Amino acid sequence: MSAHGAEAALARFFADGAGCASTPDHDALWAALRDAADGGKRVRPVLLTTVYEALGGNDDHVVAEVAAALELLHTAFVVHDDVIDADTVRRGRPNVSGTFAGQARRAGQPAARSARYGDAAGILAGDLALAGAIRTIALCGAAPATVRRLLDLLDRALHLSAAGELADVRLAVLGGRDIAETLVMEEHKTAVYSFELPLQLAAVLAAAADDCVEALGRFGCLLGVAYQLRDDLDGLFGDRARTGKSVESDLREGKFTPLMAYARATDAWPEIAPHVGAPALHEASADRVRGLLVACGARRFVEDLAADLSREALDAVAHLPVAPPLHDWVATVMAEAGSAA
Amino acid sequence: MSAHGAEAALARFFADGAGCASTPDHDALWAALRDAADGGKRVRPVLLTTVYEALGGNDDHVVAEVAAALELLHTAFVVHDDVIDADTVRRGRPNVSGTFAGQARRAGQPAARSARYGDAAGILAGDLALAGAIRTIALCGAAPATVRRLLDLLDRALHLSAAGELADVRLAVLGGRDIAETLVMEEHKTAVYSFELPLQLAAVLAAAADDCVEALGRFGCLLGVAYQLRDDLDGLFGDRARTGKSVESDLREGKFTPLMAYARATDAWPEIAPHVGAPALHEASADRVRGLLVACGARRFVEDLAADLSREALDAVAHLPVAPPLHDWVATVMAEAGSAA
Repeated sequence: MSAHGAEAALARFFADGAGCASTPDHDALWAALRDAADGGKRVRPVLLTTVYEALGGNDDHVVAEVAAALELLHTAFVVHDDVIDADTVRRGRPNVSGTFAGQARRAGQPAARSARYGDAAGILAGDLALAGAIRTIALCGAAPATVRRLLDLLDRALHLSAAGELADVRLAVLGGRDIAETLVMEEHKTAVYSFELPLQLAAVLAAAADDCVEALGRFGCLLGVAYQLRDDLDGLFGDRARTGKSVESDLREGKFTPLMAYARATDAWPEIAPHVGAPALHEASADRVRGLLVACGARRFVEDLAADLSREALDAVAHLPVAPPLHDWVATVMAEAGSAA
Repeated sequence: MSAHGAEAALARFFADGAGCASTPDHDALWAALRDAADGGKRVRPVLLTTVYEALGGNDDHVVAEVAAALELLHTAFVVHDDVIDADTVRRGRPNVSGTFAGQARRAGQPAARSARYGDAAGILAGDLALAGAIRTIALCGAAPATVRRLLDLLDRALHLSAAGELADVRLAVLGGRDIAETLVMEEHKTAVYSFELPLQLAAVLAAAADDCVEALGRFGCLLGVAYQLRDDLDGLFGDRARTGKSVESDLREGKFTPLMAYARATDAWPEIAPHVGAPALHEASADRVRGLLVACGARRFVEDLAADLSREALDAVAHLPVAPPLHDWVATVMAEAGSAA
């Protein structure tokens, strides 16, 4: 499973974009965006390409363009997400906003002004990546009726992703109540654009039948939530060396995940709650929270739910010829959940 | 001069988008975006439609779609710009980020957390408007080769606008040196997407000759800078009742415009500089700065430059049949510079 074509299409995209303007601001912004798009595992391009080929698709150029568009979309979301979460580092290096904020800091500017410059760059770079994703699909070279369907799928994914991302922040800022609401948030925030969209784009590009498009969408939706649940678990219980993330960061940010929603309905919550969203959380307190999440059954509940959803996902596509490669792919992707994608 | 078709296309866009998801988060985000797109003067749709018709274009549907896309693009930029500038009010009402931040404040959240929720909503709503603009042009119904040219013009405008917006923040945060740099910033930030783009889209849609597309681009570029210079003047010397803006806000934000760049090279600068970007600027100090900007010749310089550029702009299109309506339009738009567009 690979996506070499997508890599070449991304390289073309960044080479073309560099010629659009020749100011120091544009050069710096474009270089930072190219860095942000670099070094990912290309989960979405690989999924799209694999399923497209398994369904008999054989137009290498078109699938490479759409795969590149998916990676640009992911980059746009990551860059904007980092601005929203005030994160300045990704994969151990300064991200777009961190790069520009760092320049202002080194020029002697105070933190707030530096952050403003960094946020501006992050918002603008994300805008260029988002625009690039849509433009790349619009001009991918498929037949006009197919392009229209691809753009419709993309549009729906954008709306749901925005709703999911806003819900994620709302739950962290204003708090949440029940598990169902957090599961819808995770479906919209992650499952739709990372799983459902690549699968359905692949099926439409390969001219698959409507029921195949639908089954793949259902598979993507279920598996995507399972993936996000595993990612939540790894955010708290994962191996820091493997995930590359601080084990405390989800707690510090006050992320209200299904794990927390489950715990909220148990006797452990009064002791957990004060640590959720506490900016100065210590490692000892984080250890205590982890212990409580295990003791109250939240960890087990989420682990079981992720396993159930993965099985349900595979059931949804068991009747399709594309089931065997998806089976292998599920094993890989679930094992990697929690490490930077 | 009107753009009724664009208004109907915008109404369809917002009706269609409402059906994309049915969560409270999506409904609230979409309603806030619709409000943000409402009540503008439709400068760009009117310009596009007027020039398209003057050039003999007669496909009402296509021009209405592209005009609506321009208004969505403008909305996206305004909403993201407000996040970047931490503005929470526009046209006297809470803007997208102000609406969501206000909800969090009323729920008892502290200012920083509330602002984070507001910024998330602003970034996400702007993303949906930007995506909507590109999608609307991709699906406007023009011939594929024309759509490709429209998307190319849009792409170039997006790159230059991002560079200009970043330069605007960089000059405010890190400071600037010379007038030429501020004029390039204003060309990229405003002239390209608000003037050059609508004019060139109109010409391409109307199948005008290449030299007409080029002349209109030059006209738009020159006039757009003239417009932005008048807007800068109105930001400091304008009638608050007419512009709807605080006369001090440009000064408080530390905007480094050509007005400031001119003043920087004069003896008045040591007395002006401490007030540029001072968050607690008083009205008396603002009056003193205004007096100094007049005395050092900065105001007169910028007024003369705006007048020269407007004349040059009209010269660039004097040989085209579309010159008479553009002449009238220039008089209107320059008189309105500085009031919310």
